[in-house]
Amino acid sequence: MLPKTPLRNTKGMIGMNYFELNKEQLLKEQEALLEKYEEYRSLKLALNMARGKPAPDQLTLSQGLLTTFNDHDCFYKGEDCRNYGNLRGLSGMTELFAELFGLPEKQIYIGAASSLNLMFDTFARNMIFGAYKGATPWGQQGKIKFLCPCPGYDRHFSIAQTFGLELIPVDMTPTGPDMDQVEELIKDPAVKGIWCVPKYSNPTGITFSDETVRRFAALTPAADDFRIFWDEAYELHDLYEEHDELLNLYSELEKTGKTNMAYFFASFSKVTFAGAGIAMMASGKENMDYALGIISMQTIGNDKINQLSHLHFFGSAEAVHEHMKKHAKILRPKFEKVLEIFDRELAERGIGSWTSPKGGYFISLDLPEGTATRTYQLAKNLGVTLTPVGATFPYGKDPHDRNLRIAPSFPSIEELELAAECLTVCARIATAEKLLEG
Amino acid sequence: MLPKTPLRNTKGMIGMNYFELNKEQLLKEQEALLEKYEEYRSLKLALNMARGKPAPDQLTLSQGLLTTFNDHDCFYKGEDCRNYGNLRGLSGMTELFAELFGLPEKQIYIGAASSLNLMFDTFARNMIFGAYKGATPWGQQGKIKFLCPCPGYDRHFSIAQTFGLELIPVDMTPTGPDMDQVEELIKDPAVKGIWCVPKYSNPTGITFSDETVRRFAALTPAADDFRIFWDEAYELHDLYEEHDELLNLYSELEKTGKTNMAYFFASFSKVTFAGAGIAMMASGKENMDYALGIISMQTIGNDKINQLSHLHFFGSAEAVHEHMKKHAKILRPKFEKVLEIFDRELAERGIGSWTSPKGGYFISLDLPEGTATRTYQLAKNLGVTLTPVGATFPYGKDPHDRNLRIAPSFPSIEELELAAECLTVCARIATAEKLLEG
Repeated sequence: MLPKTPLRNTKGMIGMNYFELNKEQLLKEQEALLEKYEEYRSLKLALNMARGKPAPDQLTLSQGLLTTFNDHDCFYKGEDCRNYGNLRGLSGMTELFAELFGLPEKQIYIGAASSLNLMFDTFARNMIFGAYKGATPWGQQGKIKFLCPCPGYDRHFSIAQTFGLELIPVDMTPTGPDMDQVEELIKDPAVKGIWCVPKYSNPTGITFSDETVRRFAALTPAADDFRIFWDEAYELHDLYEEHDELLNLYSELEKTGKTNMAYFFASFSKVTFAGAGIAMMASGKENMDYALGIISMQTIGNDKINQLSHLHFFGSAEAVHEHMKKHAKILRPKFEKVLEIFDRELAERGIGSWTSPKGGYFISLDLPEGTATRTYQLAKNLGVTLTPVGATFPYGKDPHDRNLRIAPSFPSIEELELAAECLTVCARIATAEKLLEG
Repeated sequence: MLPKTPLRNTKGMIGMNYFELNKEQLLKEQEALLEKYEEYRSLKLALNMARGKPAPDQLTLSQGLLTTFNDHDCFYKGEDCRNYGNLRGLSGMTELFAELFGLPEKQIYIGAASSLNLMFDTFARNMIFGAYKGATPWGQQGKIKFLCPCPGYDRHFSIAQTFGLELIPVDMTPTGPDMDQVEELIKDPAVKGIWCVPKYSNPTGITFSDETVRRFAALTPAADDFRIFWDEAYELHDLYEEHDELLNLYSELEKTGKTNMAYFFASFSKVTFAGAGIAMMASGKENMDYALGIISMQTIGNDKINQLSHLHFFGSAEAVHEHMKKHAKILRPKFEKVLEIFDRELAERGIGSWTSPKGGYFISLDLPEGTATRTYQLAKNLGVTLTPVGATFPYGKDPHDRNLRIAPSFPSIEELELAAECLTVCARIATAEKLLEG
């Protein structure tokens, strides 16, 4: 399916800044690009940069998880992990998460495989029962709102939307959500919370600055049932030795006496198996006591065999960090390949800007305003699937029609190179068209 | 801890019907019983008949589950089960449940390990979003009610109570819930549903008759969002070759055109591992499409590795049935031991009545009115833990103070024998006291 030698987009075409070309030059460029486009189309590609999924060789890093019971029994500190019980999860598991994420062990709840599920359920509890004992349920407060830093994670926004909340966009900056906006918006008592992916944010890859985290800890929302949903999806997912450091929000909240203002979520979905990891949530003591009171009606306990198997496989937080270095070794060249192609094909042509994350799963590509949908469509016609335009914004609408979320993890590096090259040709066509229109 | 030869209660004491004894005889009996009671107390027992938990040797029947990946890879029909995706679950798993429970494969959703969790979540969806597209959410209909056949399963009742519904008791009969009562109660549009454990009911062990199932299928509730929660917890859990047969409610609902009136739940919690099985739900097509629309916001998918491992372990519905015979072989003598002791110690004394289930996990013991709490307390003082009195009734209140749920599965047969003997002594003391009072 893949050609032996990847085609080179630059060949025979103009490398100058598109925004400085005259109409004649643009038309000539467009002609050459369309020829190139047809060349790609003849390859009948089927490439995908849409999904933030680990690649098979990443999953294979955890293959040992599947056979840990060859060398171990089913008991953990005397507890038969095959049987019912232990709502919060094995103590080894809560201890491991406590160490990895700097959270109080006694306030950690281990769920099943999906942290998204824990977030959804937390939303559902707050809707039906209220955010704390005695609080009016979110669902009985009329029109309420949720802050959505964007570009952000579509599935976060979808949860708030599913529950009928109004989604309020907040601009993402290189240091996190625009905190001036946040501090202003929370003066409205109808604003009930905010979504955050504080480290290697989905999709921009930025990490919230210390100042941003401190301003979060110091928030004084009008609503006493305002909650920060702090999704540490990529906390462990550094690509380089020299990586971003996220200030510990829980510790900062202890200083301000507001530990119940935030819920913390994390999982091993992109550590071990995306479909069979371990998820956790944590929060202030009152929040967790309250949540566990309701959760104890929902289940007798989650899968302890999988928890035990993870404990066997890792044994320590150090082992998790070592394991993540193996992921980085696989992912790093993929990120670098995409960035290399963007640099080569887009930078000097003045087309778009993009993030160079030191971790996480995504690159965020901002194209010239009004060209993302066209680029997406052109790529689709080549057999190159991208995350739908607008997915990173509330209600699926990118107000500037410019953002594309690039997921380099799943394809092989050869596929990725070709897909990224196709994408740049599409972006260039869309940009040229736009310039010729205007 | 256990005495070498179990004590015999009958020795030296009266075997006549207590209700035919005069005061003098009762006092004499009481004296002998208290002596026996002290004898048991000196043993400092710690026995438990409260928990419907599988015993360790039952769990060991499924030990092979833990090492299926020694012989198999992680792919199912080309799908990498380690990765994200497949909301409904592996087709092999939906097919297996479809065959075992006589349900339409395309309308089965595979959850994580806990069917209770699926029931709770179904309740939550109906509370927040309504029971069908366009329905007024249960949570926005003011005071609503739920039917609770009792004695029944405490965790069912707790779910409805947690969501603030009024629990309406319905009498359990030897053929299922009193359908005259049910048919009358559903004329109230505030009645939103009913809990059912239709085969080997918790705790009575009875199976709903064909007529009961047909009457369920023919219900015409005033509320169009009335739903039957049909928990087939013990569908596969026969103790004898000659077992109860439950008429298929789904097929009956097809005849009446009401497949969306019921949700079906089941799990492998008492087939493989109580803490790490596989749970499922099913319903009419419209219900499932609607539910899955919401569930798709809640998670990307559940643990497919555990699903695959179960498929490797069983391979077919026939293998599941064979596996259940091994459970029966372990459980049968335990049930029979308890029943033997009840027969020997209580029957001719006229104390109480009990069920002799052909399957499931419980024996329901009805003591003379007003003696269950006293019996429970006396047993507790001996170190014999029973399910709290009232647990089998809405709001934890047994109106007759007579029902005890006996769970014979977890203790060893020796422990069980001693615990059952203690229990009978306690029941006799409580009965004698009651008769002396009156």
